[in-house]
Amino acid sequence: MSGRLSVVGLGPGPAAWMTPEASERIAEASDVVGYAPYVARLGLRGDQRTHASDNREELARARFALALAEDGANVAVVSGGDPGVFAMAAAVFEAAEERAAWRAVDISVAPGVSAMQAAAARLGAPLGHDFCAISLSDNLKPWAAVERRLRAAAEGDFVIALYNPASKARPSRIGEAFALLAAMKAHATPVAFARAVGRADERLTLTTLGEADVAIVDMATLVIVGSSETRMIAREGAPPWMLTPRSYGGSR
Amino acid sequence: MSGRLSVVGLGPGPAAWMTPEASERIAEASDVVGYAPYVARLGLRGDQRTHASDNREELARARFALALAEDGANVAVVSGGDPGVFAMAAAVFEAAEERAAWRAVDISVAPGVSAMQAAAARLGAPLGHDFCAISLSDNLKPWAAVERRLRAAAEGDFVIALYNPASKARPSRIGEAFALLAAMKAHATPVAFARAVGRADERLTLTTLGEADVAIVDMATLVIVGSSETRMIAREGAPPWMLTPRSYGGSR
Repeated sequence: MSGRLSVVGLGPGPAAWMTPEASERIAEASDVVGYAPYVARLGLRGDQRTHASDNREELARARFALALAEDGANVAVVSGGDPGVFAMAAAVFEAAEERAAWRAVDISVAPGVSAMQAAAARLGAPLGHDFCAISLSDNLKPWAAVERRLRAAAEGDFVIALYNPASKARPSRIGEAFALLAAMKAHATPVAFARAVGRADERLTLTTLGEADVAIVDMATLVIVGSSETRMIAREGAPPWMLTPRSYGGSR
Repeated sequence: MSGRLSVVGLGPGPAAWMTPEASERIAEASDVVGYAPYVARLGLRGDQRTHASDNREELARARFALALAEDGANVAVVSGGDPGVFAMAAAVFEAAEERAAWRAVDISVAPGVSAMQAAAARLGAPLGHDFCAISLSDNLKPWAAVERRLRAAAEGDFVIALYNPASKARPSRIGEAFALLAAMKAHATPVAFARAVGRADERLTLTTLGEADVAIVDMATLVIVGSSETRMIAREGAPPWMLTPRSYGGSR
């Protein structure tokens, strides 16, 4: 008899940002599958089997988890942030599509707080109006597709959240993205680099599209680029708040 | 001495989707401000003051909460979903900008699971690749701005999550939006209407851009329109899963 598979969102890091549903799914699991540092943080019981992997082989990990569930296990596939947003849920359903036995597995997704939401919470309300989320990773899509989406996001004057802005293989992709955006958007557009939000080494950097130093951006950084309406609210003795107001184009 | 103000995300409804941080902020609050049905669900203690309001006057509610905090209260402003996504956080910072005493208030945001994430979790992985979130409300922006963003979202081939797709004042806005999108995107594009996800009256409807019956869309509905890569995965004896794969344009 086939078991169950839950794709579980751990949120951006701290336990205070993980939903009760996610905790429950992990507690119920006989087997926990995921990226090793995430699995290590979970404080699992001795009777729970763990299957830690590296962070690259998402599809292999999904197939492995589905095979466990096919054999009757109650599997939790853990994922940072929200598994539905640039994380494990897509890989699990892609793998499930491959085999009838896997399409018959009871698969559910426990959503979570994604990195852009944690970053936004720390910064003020930069996602207060229409926005897009774009992954700058070109592992699984041509760079031309990234450029097309950046261009469309600028044309639509969306706030833009950028995931996976840099990697060892392509450290310059955030620089290329900013060059494209700076040719289409005002140089005074507010920009935030939110690194490791909720973790001990959290670092928030507020800058502008024209003055941003992209060299400080790494894979743990979530980048938010404002719309034409996004502004900084100055405060005495504290960093400014980043706000995209609810109104647009002078409508109040 | 000035108090504190937390803008707290309750998630889409069920307690299992509300973060421990959100629960803690509410438990610590002396005063809870929010839309009446949300406040009624919270099970507050007798020593906590409640200030329920209707759902329209976001800015007035934000000013009221800031005035309480200015007087020393520990205020929780509660918001459905994620307060940073089409919810109360932007209104609070807009209001705070108005007065120096309010800019000095210790304001924090507790993020939450937003409606599009709950809908995605139920559907499969429709937000598995680049996406945008657009509010169809034209209370605070001209309809031309909505159209510009819909057009850009189609040009960028983003998955599109639509918030506030209908209202009593403008029941036809989802119809106008779909007409615009149908002129730019394939009629076979997968579409989901996810109504009241996580609540007793939850209803998921899977359709296509060409065949969608927008008459069933109300204010409790979150709409997801696929990209050119979004597909349905058929299953025996169960509704299909909606998937936007991690790869794009044939890249694997």
